[in-house]
Amino acid sequence: MKFIDLRSDTVTEPTEEMRKAMCEAEVGDDVYDEDPTIKKLESMAAEILGKEAGLFVPSGTFGNQLSIFSHCERGNEVIVGDDCHIVQHEAGASSIIAGVQLRTIKSDRGALPPEEVESKIRKIEDIHFPKTGLICLENAHSNGRVIPLSNFDKIRKIADKYNVPIHLDGARIFNAATTLDVDPKEIAKYADSISFCLSKGLCAPVGSIVVGNKEFIDEAKKRRKIMGGGMRQAGILAAAGIVALEKMRFRLHEDHENAKYLAEKLSNFDFIEIIEKVEINMVFFKINKEFKDEDFISFMKDNGIKINPPEEGIYRFVTHYWIKKSDIDKTIKIIEEFFTKL
Amino acid sequence: MKFIDLRSDTVTEPTEEMRKAMCEAEVGDDVYDEDPTIKKLESMAAEILGKEAGLFVPSGTFGNQLSIFSHCERGNEVIVGDDCHIVQHEAGASSIIAGVQLRTIKSDRGALPPEEVESKIRKIEDIHFPKTGLICLENAHSNGRVIPLSNFDKIRKIADKYNVPIHLDGARIFNAATTLDVDPKEIAKYADSISFCLSKGLCAPVGSIVVGNKEFIDEAKKRRKIMGGGMRQAGILAAAGIVALEKMRFRLHEDHENAKYLAEKLSNFDFIEIIEKVEINMVFFKINKEFKDEDFISFMKDNGIKINPPEEGIYRFVTHYWIKKSDIDKTIKIIEEFFTKL
Amino acid sequence: MKFIDLRSDTVTEPTEEMRKAMCEAEVGDDVYDEDPTIKKLESMAAEILGKEAGLFVPSGTFGNQLSIFSHCERGNEVIVGDDCHIVQHEAGASSIIAGVQLRTIKSDRGALPPEEVESKIRKIEDIHFPKTGLICLENAHSNGRVIPLSNFDKIRKIADKYNVPIHLDGARIFNAATTLDVDPKEIAKYADSISFCLSKGLCAPVGSIVVGNKEFIDEAKKRRKIMGGGMRQAGILAAAGIVALEKMRFRLHEDHENAKYLAEKLSNFDFIEIIEKVEINMVFFKINKEFKDEDFISFMKDNGIKINPPEEGIYRFVTHYWIKKSDIDKTIKIIEEFFTKL
Amino acid sequence: MKFIDLRSDTVTEPTEEMRKAMCEAEVGDDVYDEDPTIKKLESMAAEILGKEAGLFVPSGTFGNQLSIFSHCERGNEVIVGDDCHIVQHEAGASSIIAGVQLRTIKSDRGALPPEEVESKIRKIEDIHFPKTGLICLENAHSNGRVIPLSNFDKIRKIADKYNVPIHLDGARIFNAATTLDVDPKEIAKYADSISFCLSKGLCAPVGSIVVGNKEFIDEAKKRRKIMGGGMRQAGILAAAGIVALEKMRFRLHEDHENAKYLAEKLSNFDFIEIIEKVEINMVFFKINKEFKDEDFISFMKDNGIKINPPEEGIYRFVTHYWIKKSDIDKTIKIIEEFFTKL
Repeated sequence: MKFIDLRSDTVTEPTEEMRKAMCEAEVGDDVYDEDPTIKKLESMAAEILGKEAGLFVPSGTFGNQLSIFSHCERGNEVIVGDDCHIVQHEAGASSIIAGVQLRTIKSDRGALPPEEVESKIRKIEDIHFPKTGLICLENAHSNGRVIPLSNFDKIRKIADKYNVPIHLDGARIFNAATTLDVDPKEIAKYADSISFCLSKGLCAPVGSIVVGNKEFIDEAKKRRKIMGGGMRQAGILAAAGIVALEKMRFRLHEDHENAKYLAEKLSNFDFIEIIEKVEINMVFFKINKEFKDEDFISFMKDNGIKINPPEEGIYRFVTHYWIKKSDIDKTIKIIEEFFTKL
Repeated sequence: MKFIDLRSDTVTEPTEEMRKAMCEAEVGDDVYDEDPTIKKLESMAAEILGKEAGLFVPSGTFGNQLSIFSHCERGNEVIVGDDCHIVQHEAGASSIIAGVQLRTIKSDRGALPPEEVESKIRKIEDIHFPKTGLICLENAHSNGRVIPLSNFDKIRKIADKYNVPIHLDGARIFNAATTLDVDPKEIAKYADSISFCLSKGLCAPVGSIVVGNKEFIDEAKKRRKIMGGGMRQAGILAAAGIVALEKMRFRLHEDHENAKYLAEKLSNFDFIEIIEKVEINMVFFKINKEFKDEDFISFMKDNGIKINPPEEGIYRFVTHYWIKKSDIDKTIKIIEEFFTKL
Repeated sequence: MKFIDLRSDTVTEPTEEMRKAMCEAEVGDDVYDEDPTIKKLESMAAEILGKEAGLFVPSGTFGNQLSIFSHCERGNEVIVGDDCHIVQHEAGASSIIAGVQLRTIKSDRGALPPEEVESKIRKIEDIHFPKTGLICLENAHSNGRVIPLSNFDKIRKIADKYNVPIHLDGARIFNAATTLDVDPKEIAKYADSISFCLSKGLCAPVGSIVVGNKEFIDEAKKRRKIMGGGMRQAGILAAAGIVALEKMRFRLHEDHENAKYLAEKLSNFDFIEIIEKVEINMVFFKINKEFKDEDFISFMKDNGIKINPPEEGIYRFVTHYWIKKSDIDKTIKIIEEFFTKL
Repeated sequence: MKFIDLRSDTVTEPTEEMRKAMCEAEVGDDVYDEDPTIKKLESMAAEILGKEAGLFVPSGTFGNQLSIFSHCERGNEVIVGDDCHIVQHEAGASSIIAGVQLRTIKSDRGALPPEEVESKIRKIEDIHFPKTGLICLENAHSNGRVIPLSNFDKIRKIADKYNVPIHLDGARIFNAATTLDVDPKEIAKYADSISFCLSKGLCAPVGSIVVGNKEFIDEAKKRRKIMGGGMRQAGILAAAGIVALEKMRFRLHEDHENAKYLAEKLSNFDFIEIIEKVEINMVFFKINKEFKDEDFISFMKDNGIKINPPEEGIYRFVTHYWIKKSDIDKTIKIIEEFFTKL
């Protein structure tokens, strides 16, 4: 049985076209800088985001942590929203790899209040102060929101005023661009470096890309080696990445529409409360009813649907390439069954 | 000329009694655990704060960072108020020495909102999450406030619920105890470890103490060596520390009274606005008048008074053992002169 | 034109069978522990080396550094030969990722003298001493030698005496097993953890495996996440890895024979001096003649042969799956041409 | 009872003159750069060693680790003898504070073979290589030897050739200068930075000094803060340090003579074998007789003499200011008693 897997868009398997591309990929030793498919993917990614150069890395966490490591000296302070992926879901890596001090600020549903950012920047050199080394943003945010570019514009101006670089965790930057209906360059232009995922909504099996100016990418390449991320014939993976960039990023609106459809259907249950407007491929909701989460999750699984347990009482369902509209209808039906029987 | 030095209580020179005690101190090699004066000071400090053991360290920053280093494994997350000394004034050390990830939360004028603390604790083990290794509190806070013990009580209960230790930066714990009119043990009991300064208001020339249970102090002793803080005949310094604990901590109310007196006099100027109630030996105020800070500071210095430049527009004057009531009267007079001439 | 690439066995492209296997691989989200091909590869690797569990990682450097990171606490001391890959070619990573202190000892052509190892182990607990956290071995060594197992046996006894674990950098463990004509388990049994490469001589495009007992691999899995090495549908890569383990490891003797053939032919030039006996797929030699390295290298390249510049005057040629006997004959011919024309 | 303490010169208590100087020291807040006695000591130390500037730190380990931290970037490689204090007795600190990779080489009785140093320096920039950040020397060596300056001269030339700085652990540099009968500048000139101890043979209770050029000391000052070594009225300690430099360093020959006298007397026992020539204030010897170390050590202690247990079978006795010739005679007598009774 094939599951309807609503846990995350990380579960997406490669498409047939990707498999074929990987099978036929021209490769070389990328540590010798000789993998033509990696080179093609890296320059394609840089071009799409309006930056000079790109670098292939094994994962989204790798891309974010490598960026922090490459921007900062050890002991620098990094300003970051307290609900972003770098803080929440990267296992404390920034204190180990880059060795930086996080300055987490309360985000406004994913957006960093510009005045808070400014207040946290170290304005003077003093023996008691670390240097502010970086500001980290995220868009689309892992809370499902697309951050308005007006917010980025304000933060960029502050960053420029104090000469602090910006890294954007753009794991789902193409979802954000889709929702904002802008060229991805229009988001990327506010950041000095961006990492984004080829897996997740874009369906490639493995890999993320970091883009930035040439000097930054040269530094990142050295540090990727320290982190053990230098891979040999990685062109196999890059071949799928190229399909992701050439094709898959243009179909994300389908996932968004499905997510909205799902939210609409869910909201028909009077005990389900949708949390916030659906902006990308994620639906967050509460179930205001007495039941056991484990029972619900295993009932769903027994009926062919995989879902994650709630975090702090909130369920998240994620749509993606392998979720069709009919899968959503089925999901709604199974939910109904469960709560009817209760 | 001897200055009236209102910059900080760190400027306090040792008293005559301290000098005599240092001169006559019985000493030994503390790395061999043979300095009787160090031993006496460490056990006296532990006893005063109701803990099993104490450890002498070169500075307040050393004491805080050693405590974080000893409580946590590298990569752990530490919950801490974003305006506390550990974040603001310790040069990013926690990312270098302990290698931990700070989770800074917005404090309510120095007090950590208990529900915010609870929301930041990692409740489940998951490959994406660092472990919450420590909560750091501060009392009296370097913003001049004494944090009410009801706040500590709530946070302690949360810490116990999730089995997370608490470190208290008690650099000025005896100022806090004086204001709260409680035995210092009543503050210390909420924390697993406390570091406090023998210099600052207590006038010893050098040194801080970390206290905690025996197991913790044993670990801290090893790590003090790694940090280069093992000192040989440190009993010289401990002799002054003993005077600090036996005498000086009981006279801090004089500094507090002088600070209140100073605040009252300052508030007589209609262009001076006192920020918050004076709770310890610090007065924070704004000067609502057009003038150059540099002019003011150098006029004061020319008249025998040292003050620090304002931080974000706010001046801080600090009273201590070497500031008499008459010094305050003189200070007010000189301020009047400056602003009259303007 | 397809090059004869003698620079390293890292340049090996995947075989047709690997490409097919990757194309058809059954995959899942490995961060959710649901990639069946990864699981199959990991347990196959563990079984072959006689350990409980295995873990897929992006590179050989990643595997070594993750192993050090998982065995040691920060600040531990690691005993290691001063000419091994971990010291020489991993960009100082052990001081960044694991944060350990290397204790490099002079190797006897790749083998660690057991008495030297024993003398460096910290025998007593003392506040001045770091703990010895790990001994690192390497076999086959990157200097081309296969270390005799009698050496490993002696070091294992010492390690057991002092209760120190051993990590084996087995990047080319199957080359070693081939030369020693033993089951790979017979090498692996001396180590607590082993990392080996699926790329290099085994021709897989990307990836290495770490094996050890279950507890160690569980810890390594957590730390792999910190290092950004958690990959999603990595089963694509694992599919090639399975071919590497099922087929390719049994043909390495061909590469060794070709290397011996190459050495024999080279030694016919009276100005070429072979350094040491050829034990695996590497030939090291000096050219005792006046010429410019750059001229030689570019002449070779113009004639379709890629070689690396010498290190400290010594050339290294490496044979592998894509080097046939006829390629060696051609190489010899081109070398002859170059030095005849000189 | 006052012990004859032969364990180390770290046990030396301050002299009467030092106590008086400390009692009367003029002090200020050194974090504000206002302690006149600290300033005097730092510039005196710099002048004596022919460098631009000096910095007071809490211990010898602190001085060495701060120097490594200030010279190197994290991940750099540091070439160092495998029997030096930094490797042997500083608790693995260099992997924690500076985060560097040690490249330990086998010393020739404390002296680094210059060709070994040269062979370990990274000569080319390559993504696989860390940068060589520092070479560390030690003189007098903690093994009791004074390293000849001809050795330092050769290593300095190599360091200059590759543009690598040198740090000298000069904990006992004045003992070395005494033995070599040279101005301490003649030793210091081979190094970019030197740390030396005011305690040990010079009898000050606490503290070491790091000297170097102004830029280096400015950087070290910032990093001293990170390490928690910023102390307030440290002039108290500096006052003793000034006596150490003005007086005590000129009497070290007495300790050396006493050590030679002790060695001569010990060698009269036919079962005692002196290890190496006595060059400073340390005598190393073996006792070729059946007995229990614990019995010997406690018998000595019962008779008023403190000695350390042997390391790897070798005893070390250390002479210093508080050991008179008559104490040595008494020591010999007690040893005789113990071994006669046996």
